[in-house]
Amino acid sequence: MTVAAIVPAAGRGERLGLGRPKALAVVGGLTLVARAVDGLVEGGVDVVVVVAPPGGEDEFRAALDHRRATVVPGADDRVGSVAAALGAVPRDAEVVLVHDAARCLCPPEVVRAVIDAVRAGHRAVVPATPVADTLKRTGPAGVVIATVDRTGLAAVQTPQGFDPATLRAAHEHARSGRDAGGPVTATDDAGLAEEIGVSVATVPGDPRAFKVTTPLDLAMAEALVAAATAGAS
Amino acid sequence: MTVAAIVPAAGRGERLGLGRPKALAVVGGLTLVARAVDGLVEGGVDVVVVVAPPGGEDEFRAALDHRRATVVPGADDRVGSVAAALGAVPRDAEVVLVHDAARCLCPPEVVRAVIDAVRAGHRAVVPATPVADTLKRTGPAGVVIATVDRTGLAAVQTPQGFDPATLRAAHEHARSGRDAGGPVTATDDAGLAEEIGVSVATVPGDPRAFKVTTPLDLAMAEALVAAATAGAS
Repeated sequence: MTVAAIVPAAGRGERLGLGRPKALAVVGGLTLVARAVDGLVEGGVDVVVVVAPPGGEDEFRAALDHRRATVVPGADDRVGSVAAALGAVPRDAEVVLVHDAARCLCPPEVVRAVIDAVRAGHRAVVPATPVADTLKRTGPAGVVIATVDRTGLAAVQTPQGFDPATLRAAHEHARSGRDAGGPVTATDDAGLAEEIGVSVATVPGDPRAFKVTTPLDLAMAEALVAAATAGAS
Repeated sequence: MTVAAIVPAAGRGERLGLGRPKALAVVGGLTLVARAVDGLVEGGVDVVVVVAPPGGEDEFRAALDHRRATVVPGADDRVGSVAAALGAVPRDAEVVLVHDAARCLCPPEVVRAVIDAVRAGHRAVVPATPVADTLKRTGPAGVVIATVDRTGLAAVQTPQGFDPATLRAAHEHARSGRDAGGPVTATDDAGLAEEIGVSVATVPGDPRAFKVTTPLDLAMAEALVAAATAGAS
């Protein structure tokens, strides 16, 4: 009854301007990828496969220290990287999560809720939070075309959970489309599952599962870790 | 050539659980409403009209101390509160902003950009930032119906800027619709302007202009103020 998780972390993280992969940025003395793996394990994941930029595997292994994680080299794009990681997922895995290392403060309860929903029979599960801001669709020169109806609108986070056959099928479909020269339009794994007609369920997300993208996000993550540490002592 | 700003702050802020209006929550030793007024003034606003919960005017005046702000009592809903504030806006105002006190860390540069865009001839202007998260439309039981196309999608912030006649017309239209028993569906003032056919322009927003809604947001705001203070010293 193995639960596996894939952490595609081959991105360069240009927007953080650190000169190293984003997943190796440090928050409260720990890299994002190490924090992400800790959260997954605490939430019930047995095996984690981390995808490093090709050539960066040793640096990632050092960052992960003695954590329960396998590091594999990534590919040119995300779809290729997840394919590489799927090859390292145990055959007997009953649930596979895909998690973004940049959501390193995702609480273990969210991980647990995603796993439980897949175990309950959902083939694809995403954590989702209500959208707080008013959203507009803009056109040329940034002029507003319309206000977006917020009814039922949700921002999705990770980890996203799948039964392994569904995740494999969704990614095979995405790869064959890409190899035929078509665009890969989905911006998340659940989107790839939707494209092959899979119904995607939601569980409540958490604001702490926000994605670290900019230096300001990194400062916020640092502050949250400091507050949690102060609260725990 | 007066620039006025309205800060509707009559909301109770239940989600913060403080037992007082959200605008009176404190970050780094200053209330949200005082910080918001400071940011507006620093960005070029001459006159600020703050809308307090009825009966809470004195508390707001105390929080605003010697700031250049007039406090007026609010109404039952936001549309009524903005109407009350419009009565206190100087007749010679050339630009009117509407700002959310909960976006208390909005940088003065954003305020300035909104004012400049109205002065340049745009009748309605909003600060907007790209949407970072994947968005899904969900239906009954939280099942995903579709992934939302992110092309041109922007999250809008405040201050929103208007030529005074446009803001008055948009709110008169909203009030007459509401008084006729119709719903007020727009979630922001620019949306009300859109409803009367006004073209809304965008200027770049800023992540620091995020809206303080939850206790976590308050902790993040606190951390940002601490970081800015440390950086400035």
